[in-house]
Amino acid sequence: VSTGAATAETLIAGVLAGETRAIAKAISLAETGFDASEAAMAALHPHTGKAHIVGITGVPGSGKSTLVRALTQEFRKAGQRVGIVAVDPSSPYSGGAILGDRVRMADLANDPGVFIRSLATRGALGGLARAAMDAVDVLDAAGFDVVLVETVGVGQDEVDIARAAHTVVVVSAPGLGDGVQAIKAGVLEIADIHAVSKADRPGAGRTASELRAMLELSPAGRAHDGWTVPVLETSAETGTGIDHLAATVGAHLRHLKDSGAFARRRQTILEARVLKTAEDLARTRIERSGVLPDVLARVAAGDLDPRAAAQVLLRGLSDDPG
Amino acid sequence: VSTGAATAETLIAGVLAGETRAIAKAISLAETGFDASEAAMAALHPHTGKAHIVGITGVPGSGKSTLVRALTQEFRKAGQRVGIVAVDPSSPYSGGAILGDRVRMADLANDPGVFIRSLATRGALGGLARAAMDAVDVLDAAGFDVVLVETVGVGQDEVDIARAAHTVVVVSAPGLGDGVQAIKAGVLEIADIHAVSKADRPGAGRTASELRAMLELSPAGRAHDGWTVPVLETSAETGTGIDHLAATVGAHLRHLKDSGAFARRRQTILEARVLKTAEDLARTRIERSGVLPDVLARVAAGDLDPRAAAQVLLRGLSDDPG
Repeated sequence: VSTGAATAETLIAGVLAGETRAIAKAISLAETGFDASEAAMAALHPHTGKAHIVGITGVPGSGKSTLVRALTQEFRKAGQRVGIVAVDPSSPYSGGAILGDRVRMADLANDPGVFIRSLATRGALGGLARAAMDAVDVLDAAGFDVVLVETVGVGQDEVDIARAAHTVVVVSAPGLGDGVQAIKAGVLEIADIHAVSKADRPGAGRTASELRAMLELSPAGRAHDGWTVPVLETSAETGTGIDHLAATVGAHLRHLKDSGAFARRRQTILEARVLKTAEDLARTRIERSGVLPDVLARVAAGDLDPRAAAQVLLRGLSDDPG
Repeated sequence: VSTGAATAETLIAGVLAGETRAIAKAISLAETGFDASEAAMAALHPHTGKAHIVGITGVPGSGKSTLVRALTQEFRKAGQRVGIVAVDPSSPYSGGAILGDRVRMADLANDPGVFIRSLATRGALGGLARAAMDAVDVLDAAGFDVVLVETVGVGQDEVDIARAAHTVVVVSAPGLGDGVQAIKAGVLEIADIHAVSKADRPGAGRTASELRAMLELSPAGRAHDGWTVPVLETSAETGTGIDHLAATVGAHLRHLKDSGAFARRRQTILEARVLKTAEDLARTRIERSGVLPDVLARVAAGDLDPRAAAQVLLRGLSDDPG
């Protein structure tokens, strides 16, 4: 046990010193599960709260990963250290590698001022949102100035993860279906900044116009926290608009701080963080209690309906049997 | 209270009789929340277990909705009654209507043998998976022979919802990005049937070949439950392959029953159902307890880390304070 405690202390010290191996290890613990990461995350939490958390979200094919890379290079030019958490919906066995998204990130991987980590969707295991938010805490505690959280802009958990940020960038691309992917993804109103990617391609201007027109119909989408939501055209290929996007991300944080909206935004992030953590803890304790097989057999036999079964599962949940 | 009980009894009787208004009302209760729907769902549960639950999933733009419509028409020709639960990631304010997906369903809406309901992503409210599974139970109890559950094939909750089915159809379309949307969506291995939509368009054959090649690399994707996963080309526009897809969906159910795999599949569905319900109940009780604002204030002040806060929230969760 004392070895374990010493190892944990070394790990925390390593993360706080910004050591890559310690950071990777701490995020792996978070990915492993609630219990595995409990001590480390509790120790790291007091050291969080300094990073600018930026959620970047958009449907598959919108060019999020490429934009994240370009944006990271821009922040690096300004001397900022950048941590990236990519919530990757790929199957565990593919690990996203087949798609090459991560391969395109390879040039960043050699930069000591950048740390990139993909988290796979955990399927029935659950806990994805909690793990992603833990990973953000690790990178925040490790002293990264900006933490980019890239998620696919569809799916309740994924949208919730992106929304648990100070600044939310929603990425749309021209030529993807009907040009209203932002609405289709249910993320129009959570954007602080809309980025239209692939501005070098035909239709980018139209996509931007459509977004602006839709924002006109949505008071909450058009402006919130006293901030008018801009629609920016960008091209990671040609570099167009990337500097402006990076500057606008920074300007949004300053706006939050100057206007006093920052405290409210921080409270929203904490609420999401705590509720997702409670959800994962409840599931972890249910699994650990070992009563699930018996309860399911009773549901299958018709002795319990699913809600009565849920009530049985929650009984005794308040005490940690571990 | 006696009026409420009488109303509840009338509602249950209406659902069991297949009355459209009662079905709509019961699903609305499920969407409202855990508490609102508790009595109705407990009463309906013993009447479930007869429908063939078919999950239909694919990335945005894959043509899911159009395929669901074509498939429904095919089942109707065979005299089967079809219930449809569409988990729609659109913003609440748009209700999906802007996209016209639901509009294209309008011809089905006039058929008394078809019931269609869209559920919106609930954002921070949570409970989407529980509500969707409740809606399936309502349609099952109402006597629909087939219940189609359409979800976007990205996002943990959405994939979990689609997977809680007897038969899972994953829809891919040609010309969407890199042609490996199924992997990108993390749903390759959950498919019992792959449908390539828009087979009238260029590239459909290539998309089907790519899927088959990927399945060769994935033993779990290629076959499970003693069933070899087919890749079918379909076109809702020309009608190509729709009859074959409908027949294959039916053949898969017969295979599950003949092979004895049905009981295991049913157990998997029940497990997802019970765990998602427990998750939603936990969240509902946390909200009802009223301790959240105080706990969040303590986290903001640095007195609690998110995990300690989660533990505080779970205390007392075992007893229903309502």
